[in-house]
Amino acid sequence: MFPELKNDRLLRAIRREPVDCTPVWIMRQAGRYLPEYRATRKEAGDFLTLCKTPELACEVTLQPLRRFPLDAAILFSDILTIPDAMGLELSLNEGIGPKFAKPLRNRRDIENLPTLDMASDLRYVTDAVTLIRNELSGSVPLIGFTGSPWTLMTYMVEGGSSKEFALAKGMLHDDPESAHLLLQKTTDAIIDYLKAQALAGAQALMVFDSWGGALSSHTYPVFSLGYMQQIVDALKSDPVSKDIPVTLFTKGGGNWLESIAATGCDAVGLDWTVSIASARERIGDKVALQGNMDPTILYASADKVSLEAERIVKEFGAYNGHVFNLGHGIHPGIDPEKVSALVETVHSASRRKKD
Amino acid sequence: MFPELKNDRLLRAIRREPVDCTPVWIMRQAGRYLPEYRATRKEAGDFLTLCKTPELACEVTLQPLRRFPLDAAILFSDILTIPDAMGLELSLNEGIGPKFAKPLRNRRDIENLPTLDMASDLRYVTDAVTLIRNELSGSVPLIGFTGSPWTLMTYMVEGGSSKEFALAKGMLHDDPESAHLLLQKTTDAIIDYLKAQALAGAQALMVFDSWGGALSSHTYPVFSLGYMQQIVDALKSDPVSKDIPVTLFTKGGGNWLESIAATGCDAVGLDWTVSIASARERIGDKVALQGNMDPTILYASADKVSLEAERIVKEFGAYNGHVFNLGHGIHPGIDPEKVSALVETVHSASRRKKD
Repeated sequence: MFPELKNDRLLRAIRREPVDCTPVWIMRQAGRYLPEYRATRKEAGDFLTLCKTPELACEVTLQPLRRFPLDAAILFSDILTIPDAMGLELSLNEGIGPKFAKPLRNRRDIENLPTLDMASDLRYVTDAVTLIRNELSGSVPLIGFTGSPWTLMTYMVEGGSSKEFALAKGMLHDDPESAHLLLQKTTDAIIDYLKAQALAGAQALMVFDSWGGALSSHTYPVFSLGYMQQIVDALKSDPVSKDIPVTLFTKGGGNWLESIAATGCDAVGLDWTVSIASARERIGDKVALQGNMDPTILYASADKVSLEAERIVKEFGAYNGHVFNLGHGIHPGIDPEKVSALVETVHSASRRKKD
Repeated sequence: MFPELKNDRLLRAIRREPVDCTPVWIMRQAGRYLPEYRATRKEAGDFLTLCKTPELACEVTLQPLRRFPLDAAILFSDILTIPDAMGLELSLNEGIGPKFAKPLRNRRDIENLPTLDMASDLRYVTDAVTLIRNELSGSVPLIGFTGSPWTLMTYMVEGGSSKEFALAKGMLHDDPESAHLLLQKTTDAIIDYLKAQALAGAQALMVFDSWGGALSSHTYPVFSLGYMQQIVDALKSDPVSKDIPVTLFTKGGGNWLESIAATGCDAVGLDWTVSIASARERIGDKVALQGNMDPTILYASADKVSLEAERIVKEFGAYNGHVFNLGHGIHPGIDPEKVSALVETVHSASRRKKD
């Protein structure tokens, strides 16, 4: 039904099979650092229209692949599509960040959250997935994604971004029953959402637990990892999604790599605070590793970017199972030339390594 | 010269000696969550005047001790006093955060940084230390502190707070020589500063490496920990400061606890992402541990605060060497009643433990 995959480095690396060179993609590779993205976004009028118009989402998804020999495409979308579809009314304004017009304020708000029908409520996402997959013509695999239940909960309860998560964390302690109800409803929707993305053509799936690292070692397993475990279990037991690799990424989760790897996910995302060599020693026999260059290094000169990319390739060593990436999304102010240097170096340095 | 110390729980715990119950103090215990602090600050006019007027700094330092049976006082000051004294012209405005009128913009700015004379340039700090020490009348020990060299560098180079540290991290990669020059000048000043605080009456010292956790596992040892090592070495080899315990706290440094403990410091601060039991297993034979309750738990009810404090006391277990604290400063919006519950519980739960 879809064109045959030509570049399967990403999928091979996630399965920890040998590759000719280390695959590389970049979180937020379709984004504001690219002038062509800014032009398309201007045309769309606003960010949400871009997400909700499959042709435009497809266009910006493909833009970085026209510039750089990246080894994967990632669906252009937002982590907050599910709460938006549940009626919280998302708006995304540059400089302000995401806001919900109707955040969850009490137990009844949580109880009243609707069950989503992926075929209608989030059809724009699955349509975009299928369109992108076809447009890619098998050049590289397409990654689908979601925010983690806990990460979505923080925005749904706080009404937007937060530094301290006073409301969301307050709920974990004062009303854990409501927190669990919300997390379960969100998890159920996420499972349907990822299955729908798989059915629509996503060849790998990733869960962004952007705010898991704000939890404590005591609350993280209960309120974040436990729900990601449910997601992994559900995907791995469904015929449509069971062979599609799943990457879990808890930013700031370096202390908990063993328990993340123990979920049965295929790959674990690393931020830059973890040494990739020590992560490999800790969990490299169970999962592939994705990461982990500090995105701020892209502010340095192209030469320094290459040096650092080479260092990370070397630090991972001549093992299978490395997907090169940044440890967090690329910043809007980065010069695209630095990305060129990065991608080129990852490929050449890892190819040399096997000589 | 100073009155005899009556409550020595803090110093005993840092030396990993037995205590009757776990000592507790709270980062930012003198701060905006206290109405009496807000009143004094209003009287002072602005935050810097509060810091620079020893009588006022003394007053706010003592305020939390009048309310709660805390086991230590900590000098009321700011981590940016050194760069301010070096001529960068600090301003601190609520809601905006710290700003330097004259941030460091190039190599010459760094070369031109003056060598500080503690007896004049930062006399207001040492005067405050001596005044507070006398006013405490030996009730509890007084902690002096500084920001870490890397943490000061981020503010000095960025000109204020930063989320991404584009300029400071860019310098580490593009011009490491200038970065090292700046870090060395800052380290030299910090060493003099802490020695002066010790001489003036500080009975324990703490280094706040608030932004060390933004570095990578590769850059942290070179640009942050290495300079904190110099500080520890200098303090431990000076007759005035050699017996004064030093606590190093890198927020987000959970991956690097072993190397922090290996500096020869006396105690290591922990944020809440680390399990205190696992930290004790990792480094508890070398250092005392300070921490590690998530400050957002204070948004929950007093009952939940007590439960969580008890859990942490229990998790540390019946070992010596625990200084109870939050994993980061207390937030301005917290109800002081919660702090009462916290302090009371730490004492009672740890006292019960020894029955």
